[in-house]
Amino acid sequence: MNFLEERIVKDGVVKPGNVLKVDTFLNHQMDIELIDQMGAEFKKRFGDAPITKILTIEASGIGIACLVARHFHVPVVFAKKSKSINLDGEMYVAEVESFTHKCKNQIIVSKKVLSSEDHVLIIDDFLANGCALQGLLSIVAESGASVEGIGIAIEKGFQPGGRMIRNLGYHLESLAIVDGMNDETGEILFRPQEA
Amino acid sequence: MNFLEERIVKDGVVKPGNVLKVDTFLNHQMDIELIDQMGAEFKKRFGDAPITKILTIEASGIGIACLVARHFHVPVVFAKKSKSINLDGEMYVAEVESFTHKCKNQIIVSKKVLSSEDHVLIIDDFLANGCALQGLLSIVAESGASVEGIGIAIEKGFQPGGRMIRNLGYHLESLAIVDGMNDETGEILFRPQEA
Repeated sequence: MNFLEERIVKDGVVKPGNVLKVDTFLNHQMDIELIDQMGAEFKKRFGDAPITKILTIEASGIGIACLVARHFHVPVVFAKKSKSINLDGEMYVAEVESFTHKCKNQIIVSKKVLSSEDHVLIIDDFLANGCALQGLLSIVAESGASVEGIGIAIEKGFQPGGRMIRNLGYHLESLAIVDGMNDETGEILFRPQEA
Repeated sequence: MNFLEERIVKDGVVKPGNVLKVDTFLNHQMDIELIDQMGAEFKKRFGDAPITKILTIEASGIGIACLVARHFHVPVVFAKKSKSINLDGEMYVAEVESFTHKCKNQIIVSKKVLSSEDHVLIIDDFLANGCALQGLLSIVAESGASVEGIGIAIEKGFQPGGRMIRNLGYHLESLAIVDGMNDETGEILFRPQEA
């Protein structure tokens, strides 16, 4: 097991309905040193790519993206989930469904901060059905930028997002891939990864 | 002018209605090195306090809080803006009005991640009317934790939030205090600060 898998086993909680709660260290309270270590690992896995920008989506992706970005020395752009009076001008827009909140949202990125010259690393905390990721990929495509890779903290390997994204040919790296969970025993089954 | 004031003059845009857009470097695209420098400055201003946790509110506070937290070696907790199925158990709840979105939200922090033993530094990107801050202070009070300080990137000094918070006796540090803006000339007037 790698450092993130070990932490999930130690502090993650499996709930009915395939919910994995990691809110004491990843997406409500955030263990900054753990996430910094994730940043170093992503740098190892994507270090050869000419990344100019890290793209994520509010809210829980932002902190991870900022700590990862330190290792790449590039800015972060986070897609916003609804039109706000502070975000005017020309925008890229995509529609995404939320598994957690059971609703549809528009996500928005200002054209000022993403262009065809950018090489993008997408970062997020979870990948399950891949809805948020499809929205981000659609925005990158609209901008003309290239996607150099996608870095995910925890992928739910038993949901279709990861397979679909890999089938599309993207370089997707998930630090922990959960292939199964048992909410009665609390057991979590990880997909084996190369060391 | 300090480094943040200089950046606001260079890249901030004044819009009608007392809106200051800083979305190319602070709250949409994020300049990681600038924000890291803000973290070092907050460490200088709050370094004597026995801080155990940094508290912020989604979304635009999160990235700043995470980069500030590196300088204090403590975890970040971000208050969530609506009840989600991934956040169950006992929670602290407060109601806040949003100036930007013209609506009311509940903000929520899990009791698992904030307790009476915590010494909290609150971090946010903007302070205007202080609505979000009042909600965070109410949550800290409910938890029994103590507020060691409040660190803000940009305070709108012509709105009442900062004065109210200082009158309540909190140690509030705003890296840039804007006392006036002119959307016709683009001029921004900063409150003088000690070097």
